[in-house]
Amino acid sequence: MISPIEWRDGKLYILNQLKLPVEKEYNVKSTVEDVFYAIKDMELRGAPLIGIAAAYGVYLAAKEIDFNNHQEFMKHIEEKTEYLAQSRPTAVNLFWALDRMKEKAKTLENLSLDDKKKSLLEEAISIHKEDEAINRSIGENFLKLLKDGMTIMTHCNAGSLATSKYGTATSPMYLAKEKGWSFKVFANETRPYLQGARLTAYELHHSGVDVTLICDNMAGSLMAEGKIDAIITGADRVAANGDTANKIGTLQLAVMAKHYGVPFYVAVPTPTIDLSTPTGKEIPIEERGSHEVTNWFGKATAPEGIKVFNPAFDVTPHQLITAIVTEKGIIYPPYNMSRGWGC
Amino acid sequence: MISPIEWRDGKLYILNQLKLPVEKEYNVKSTVEDVFYAIKDMELRGAPLIGIAAAYGVYLAAKEIDFNNHQEFMKHIEEKTEYLAQSRPTAVNLFWALDRMKEKAKTLENLSLDDKKKSLLEEAISIHKEDEAINRSIGENFLKLLKDGMTIMTHCNAGSLATSKYGTATSPMYLAKEKGWSFKVFANETRPYLQGARLTAYELHHSGVDVTLICDNMAGSLMAEGKIDAIITGADRVAANGDTANKIGTLQLAVMAKHYGVPFYVAVPTPTIDLSTPTGKEIPIEERGSHEVTNWFGKATAPEGIKVFNPAFDVTPHQLITAIVTEKGIIYPPYNMSRGWGC
Repeated sequence: MISPIEWRDGKLYILNQLKLPVEKEYNVKSTVEDVFYAIKDMELRGAPLIGIAAAYGVYLAAKEIDFNNHQEFMKHIEEKTEYLAQSRPTAVNLFWALDRMKEKAKTLENLSLDDKKKSLLEEAISIHKEDEAINRSIGENFLKLLKDGMTIMTHCNAGSLATSKYGTATSPMYLAKEKGWSFKVFANETRPYLQGARLTAYELHHSGVDVTLICDNMAGSLMAEGKIDAIITGADRVAANGDTANKIGTLQLAVMAKHYGVPFYVAVPTPTIDLSTPTGKEIPIEERGSHEVTNWFGKATAPEGIKVFNPAFDVTPHQLITAIVTEKGIIYPPYNMSRGWGC
Repeated sequence: MISPIEWRDGKLYILNQLKLPVEKEYNVKSTVEDVFYAIKDMELRGAPLIGIAAAYGVYLAAKEIDFNNHQEFMKHIEEKTEYLAQSRPTAVNLFWALDRMKEKAKTLENLSLDDKKKSLLEEAISIHKEDEAINRSIGENFLKLLKDGMTIMTHCNAGSLATSKYGTATSPMYLAKEKGWSFKVFANETRPYLQGARLTAYELHHSGVDVTLICDNMAGSLMAEGKIDAIITGADRVAANGDTANKIGTLQLAVMAKHYGVPFYVAVPTPTIDLSTPTGKEIPIEERGSHEVTNWFGKATAPEGIKVFNPAFDVTPHQLITAIVTEKGIIYPPYNMSRGWGC
């Protein structure tokens, strides 16, 4: 599968996702500023991936220090984490990763400068590897629900390109491929931003998974014909009662899955389950600008001045979700997240 | 509302729909060849509209005749109807309109050349006016099902731009506007060809109807929020048991409408009800090329070589249809079209 971020030969490589699906271009990021702009300009996206990149960014900030006064060392690290936090100010994983790097730095007081730097690099690599391990575990748990020969539908991109490796929703697809299963995937293009076409179809196709691209409005016709065995999506947030916010269009897949008796599964790492949000009603839905809907590569596809409704997410009520799969195990209804998960 | 075709001051004007939604350009068509290419090159589309244009095309073919031997007159008319039939070889209304013009021509043997031409123009105008009357009647029948203050969702373009005036699915919207009702419409953009964005949103907006454009995957979220009072779509073919083929994406609207208790209505002129097709299973579904899904204005939005599934239509089973509205009246379930309709 595709690695959107790599630490290799002492260098940080980031795949420029803005050039997908046409070009596969990796750029070396040598400074904290390079990482800041890679995040800000969306060369990479996806909450876990942003967190990983930011962690390497903190190491790159430490790398440029040439003195070993711990107070000043920490001052520099704090300045630079503050700076990196501005790159995508709403990304929860970003803050989490920056905090973790800062906390690590605080414990390094008695080390030599070289060892401080080495420790921070190790911490960034740990964050990176832990994300890989979480996603692999999600996939392994998923395989208990799936079988050789199945056809799966997915929406948006909860794949390698949003994480480090495996992805969340795509993890069982890659593991099924590793096992040699005959496994088919339908990827919904996911208007308006086409993450399904540009990213999911790209990464699965590139990794040799048998993937077919459809428009979002073709999903129902495939389910009606009995061609879909299960639907797997990621999630942006899961409420304590199991209600799940994900990319716009997820809800209607779940409604159709219910109608046609197709299992509807959500793939999430446990930190995405937010116990402080009781139900989906409390999840705010971001509305985005009309331009994404009315323009393509600068060409108008709708009349000038037309009103547009462009919600970025919708909430799938827990009643429509067959199971929620995490790195810790499979959660079945009735969902009561506060009593623990993964049973 | 917009007239996509007009006979005015002795000239045939056709709106070039290829330039929508950016430009509103009418071109005068003076010869049968002009009409042929307008249809072939898709300056106009929509089965009823193609039939009307072809009828005027037959008149324009007659107009160029400068002799009054009836046998030769008929030979010329037959040659030119044959020619026009090649413009869009699968369009049923096209053949129907050409046959009707040819049959009319046969009855004109004893008239002067001028009167023959005049009669053919009158027949073309009749075909045009009859389509307008049918669509207006569909809208009038629909108003019995609708109320002031409602919000309606529609899909694809079953509007003025596919017919002569009013359209089918849009007819109640224009009539509600005439009555001064406060009436809101959500138009689904209708991937891959964007008829909803380019045509429906355009014609409603242009006519002062309160219309909001959404992507196809946002429909479910509006229904979940209780914001949609009814769904109205057109149809390409209605089978004898009420199963209805329409633009891809219609089926999933009907499934969601059922789930959320939203009435789902189909608007059709009675000739679209095909008694020789017993059920939806007998309706062939055209699959179109991958290019429509993977490219936008020549830019790739999906990886090269990706598999694509691109059905142009889907079939909504009659169980999901609340009522079928025709120019003759409203048909309720259980649908048994062979016993007549419009009761």
